[in-house]
Amino acid sequence: MVSKNQIKLITSLQQKKYRYANKLFFAEGVKGIQELLDSNFELEHLYSTQNDFPEVSNNKKSIIDENDLKKISALATPNTCLAVFKMPLEKSIIATGLIVVLDSIRDPGNLGTIMRLCDWFGIQQIVCSNETVDYFNPKVVQATMGSIARVNVNYTDLNSYLQQTQLPIFGTFMNGENIYKSILPQQGIIIMGNEANGISETLEKLVQNRLTIPRFGSLQKTESLNVATATAIILSEFSRGN
Amino acid sequence: MVSKNQIKLITSLQQKKYRYANKLFFAEGVKGIQELLDSNFELEHLYSTQNDFPEVSNNKKSIIDENDLKKISALATPNTCLAVFKMPLEKSIIATGLIVVLDSIRDPGNLGTIMRLCDWFGIQQIVCSNETVDYFNPKVVQATMGSIARVNVNYTDLNSYLQQTQLPIFGTFMNGENIYKSILPQQGIIIMGNEANGISETLEKLVQNRLTIPRFGSLQKTESLNVATATAIILSEFSRGN
Repeated sequence: MVSKNQIKLITSLQQKKYRYANKLFFAEGVKGIQELLDSNFELEHLYSTQNDFPEVSNNKKSIIDENDLKKISALATPNTCLAVFKMPLEKSIIATGLIVVLDSIRDPGNLGTIMRLCDWFGIQQIVCSNETVDYFNPKVVQATMGSIARVNVNYTDLNSYLQQTQLPIFGTFMNGENIYKSILPQQGIIIMGNEANGISETLEKLVQNRLTIPRFGSLQKTESLNVATATAIILSEFSRGN
Repeated sequence: MVSKNQIKLITSLQQKKYRYANKLFFAEGVKGIQELLDSNFELEHLYSTQNDFPEVSNNKKSIIDENDLKKISALATPNTCLAVFKMPLEKSIIATGLIVVLDSIRDPGNLGTIMRLCDWFGIQQIVCSNETVDYFNPKVVQATMGSIARVNVNYTDLNSYLQQTQLPIFGTFMNGENIYKSILPQQGIIIMGNEANGISETLEKLVQNRLTIPRFGSLQKTESLNVATATAIILSEFSRGN
């Protein structure tokens, strides 16, 4: 059984302002919830249609029916479980290694996929513009497939952040150096731009190394790659070694 | 003005059986429609809230209001235009170059993104299992961003197809050869597996070259990459040259 107040609270967490007002967010699905439980995230309460997650004490979980799950889920086809977690305290930005900077990524699926990619390639830090979608958005949490527990995400004014960094700054453009022929360092900042507009003009001025992912084939008509697939190719190139 | 019969027909095209019964599909948005018009696709009828697309004759287009567009659109937030096209005749499978084989890709966004990637990397042929999502699905058409006009897609029984090919067959697995250290040919078949289950056991037996995209970082807990981002990395490696 889920009370009306609980339903009201949980559905409100689909909106950013209520997530930050309550310092809570939620995840759905066994795999994502398990990853968060195994990490440093503090469980507020777990709702499940099955008697699973034996490691969670009984006062922290409720067995509910599918109808109740539907009322609290953000998914069109709800999973078997939903867990509300406390938002962790914001950590400071890690200043070494490869850092991915996101300039106004708007699509939750793209942010989640990029977090999963960073996790795969051992990148610990993502720095987002304040306009980038919130990473506690349920659709982002869903798309990260647990990587949210392992990648540090901060939101800040990118112009100030990039002006103070000592690391080399990379960005991809149509007219940059062929990424396959570039020498890529093990430390640096990689800026990925907005889905529709790419890297903003203000930030473009701060890019020291302009890279291009070359197009192949005779037609050359594809205008651009999706930002998540472009990130995949770029992180692969930075990581593969020469 | 859109008639009731037109609304009924167009909304029915969201379902595969009606697309194939009517030999019609639709695209939404100026960019996607323009790409299809510029290619060999035959327009059935264009519906737009604006008097655009001057190259389309008046008997092939209707200016409609936003309310009518909403009735025929498959999008939560409709664009300004929707165009119904005739399905092209199926072309035979191109048997040279790099060929991407999809084993039961279910997510329309993933298929659309993979088509866009193939277009970027100059890959002309995708061969799908019969269980793979239909590429005329409106969500696929949307995600291809026009690449649907330039990549040949066929559906077939993959087991028979792979048994008769002369090309080397590649697939990615957790325990394959490091893709960054492998010699990759300019011709061959690359199998990408289902989102949840990977490459099916039947097809796995036909793979001659088992590849792995290595994970980096100390944690190594990410279980897998999204199939579209994995495809991005693999196609980049096959295309980049050594």
